[in-house]
Amino acid sequence: MKKENIASYKLQIENELFNRVVPFWEAHSIDKKHGGYYNCLDRDGSVYDTRKHIWLQGRQAWMFSKLFEHEQNVEWLEIALNGVKFLTNNAVRDDGRAYFSMTEDGRPIYLQRKIFSECFYVMALAGYAYASGEMGYLKRAESQLGKIWEWSEDLTKVGRPAFSGEVASQSLAIPMILLNLIEEVSRNDNSRYSAEIEGCIQRILLHVDEERQAVFETVSPDGGYINNIDGRLLNPGHAIEAGWFLQNWAQKKQDSKLAETASNMVRWSYKKGWDQQFGGIYYFLDYEGYSPTQLEWDMKLWWPHCEAMVAHLQNVKIFGLKEDWNSFTEVTDYSFSHFSDKEFGEWYGYANRRGEITHRFKGGPYKGCFHVPRALFYCWQMLKELEDSV
Amino acid sequence: MKKENIASYKLQIENELFNRVVPFWEAHSIDKKHGGYYNCLDRDGSVYDTRKHIWLQGRQAWMFSKLFEHEQNVEWLEIALNGVKFLTNNAVRDDGRAYFSMTEDGRPIYLQRKIFSECFYVMALAGYAYASGEMGYLKRAESQLGKIWEWSEDLTKVGRPAFSGEVASQSLAIPMILLNLIEEVSRNDNSRYSAEIEGCIQRILLHVDEERQAVFETVSPDGGYINNIDGRLLNPGHAIEAGWFLQNWAQKKQDSKLAETASNMVRWSYKKGWDQQFGGIYYFLDYEGYSPTQLEWDMKLWWPHCEAMVAHLQNVKIFGLKEDWNSFTEVTDYSFSHFSDKEFGEWYGYANRRGEITHRFKGGPYKGCFHVPRALFYCWQMLKELEDSV
Repeated sequence: MKKENIASYKLQIENELFNRVVPFWEAHSIDKKHGGYYNCLDRDGSVYDTRKHIWLQGRQAWMFSKLFEHEQNVEWLEIALNGVKFLTNNAVRDDGRAYFSMTEDGRPIYLQRKIFSECFYVMALAGYAYASGEMGYLKRAESQLGKIWEWSEDLTKVGRPAFSGEVASQSLAIPMILLNLIEEVSRNDNSRYSAEIEGCIQRILLHVDEERQAVFETVSPDGGYINNIDGRLLNPGHAIEAGWFLQNWAQKKQDSKLAETASNMVRWSYKKGWDQQFGGIYYFLDYEGYSPTQLEWDMKLWWPHCEAMVAHLQNVKIFGLKEDWNSFTEVTDYSFSHFSDKEFGEWYGYANRRGEITHRFKGGPYKGCFHVPRALFYCWQMLKELEDSV
Repeated sequence: MKKENIASYKLQIENELFNRVVPFWEAHSIDKKHGGYYNCLDRDGSVYDTRKHIWLQGRQAWMFSKLFEHEQNVEWLEIALNGVKFLTNNAVRDDGRAYFSMTEDGRPIYLQRKIFSECFYVMALAGYAYASGEMGYLKRAESQLGKIWEWSEDLTKVGRPAFSGEVASQSLAIPMILLNLIEEVSRNDNSRYSAEIEGCIQRILLHVDEERQAVFETVSPDGGYINNIDGRLLNPGHAIEAGWFLQNWAQKKQDSKLAETASNMVRWSYKKGWDQQFGGIYYFLDYEGYSPTQLEWDMKLWWPHCEAMVAHLQNVKIFGLKEDWNSFTEVTDYSFSHFSDKEFGEWYGYANRRGEITHRFKGGPYKGCFHVPRALFYCWQMLKELEDSV
């Protein structure tokens, strides 16, 4: 890795983040009247649906908190607070469940069985608390995290009955998000969560199949391979994200074996997930080579590429290997040439297998101000450190 | 329409149905041990997941009942009974709810909020009753249809709470399937369902926007246009299917105005849905031209093409217009050249916008022995009638 290459990527990413991505959300998403953010934004930022999706309200509030914390632009703290207020005023029911979608003025539309709305609510509150110093929000985040933890231990409580024909299984997403939330809430003082942290790490590791060199979304409770549609499913972007979440903890714990495993989760999943013919990372694959049943399996989505940028660069920083750097530049070049919109800013979210954009919007029910700026921000920070160290 | 053209399509379709489609399901799907049908079948018919999906169990039992009724091949009645027994032994709970998926030996895996499993259960029982003459099954079908009717009047009973921010709306799918079930259950003696039939027809017509020349999936309770993601959504294949369901009733009622509307539903939806660049019918569109939020919106699925074959040919039979015949041959030629598998039989289900097959399986959680043989069977019958009349 030559210093000038590192500097060149750093500049490209810095320019994208601060001149093309953050300004897009500043200019188009803020709802000053009702609070919160419009997140269904067309290519040029115009609102094509006024609904607000709680995952994305929480994520954007977290993102602007993070940006303020490092760059001290007070407007960013105000934008974060705008989302936090919408969430605390509207999004959570008395029983602690948070809605999935709401009207622009905060009336509920839909409640998912899944508990991710609650997770991104915690992330927003914790991020805002640390950014603003208003630690009352951290207390609320911790209390909500406690509820999520209980629910995750007994998922039937959130409305899903267990049927006799269901295969006992566990999903990668749950320990991943819990571990991430603990990191967001407890920052550098993790001692009171040490049992939970260890539990999450062990549960994530059950999804890592060393023999098959694969990370499975769904495994049996003891980590065994389940040979059906769900058990064979690979979601390379998700596995790569799990890899860098886990690597954060490996570094904190100075656990070199865990660091090796986390880096392999990224390398294996990237290798399996990369489309040798057209480039880009597949959304889903079946480990045995059957066609995944998801209709969109061969599409190229923005977020797996964002996760891979962060994860490869993290590996570069830790292990200093040229092959990780090559993977970082490969996925970064692919992302900039396919997803970045030079005219209106932000990134497109969805391309077909060939890499042709299929959806012109910048924000939708599952895409908002999160994966792109988060990846650019973390990569920018890591590239600055790398540049100084080379 | 020249007689020799009609004869040529008739032969092609007859050959496809009886030599390549029905034999595929006969050879690969039947589970003699547990009853029912394996429906997750790879390209060559091998089972890639042993789960059984109740929509497809019901549909296949109905299809083989229909085939037996017209062709008197007694093996087809046995195949139908094999599915009916699996359904009656396993699929329905005491409260009348039917599962969405089960293990091969009939243990429940998943229950949907939606009520379509119950609908296809009714379809199977009614079809088998008429085919076999065992009218006890018709009684059970009628009783279950009564429950579905009640649920459809108050959908909150099946577990979906109404939130204050939800826009009051109605979905095309519900009156469509109810009307279809009434037809399956009551056949030529519809008198005792006349109020329900009229209600379903009126509810379907609320989705037909004459001014916009469009059929919307979701409209306000008075048929008004809803300008959001859901309200703008077009599903051309579904609207085309609704058109031919409705046309059946227009013919029974000898209602020429309704016949005209039903034929327009087909023509408008086909025109809007046809991809001028690559051919084939889009899965979803947004009426205002925004990108639909469904990731798979630009894919070409087998079933809208099947529905369009039936619907155009029905229009030809009724109105005798060359343009409807041209639409029939266009969509039939597209379907045979893209979806039909000359080597292993049956049709592929999923192609990308360019028409390249993306999923190699012949059966999955939502594709089974239904749309292809149903469309081929109805088209074959209509082509025979057309041939005789020209």
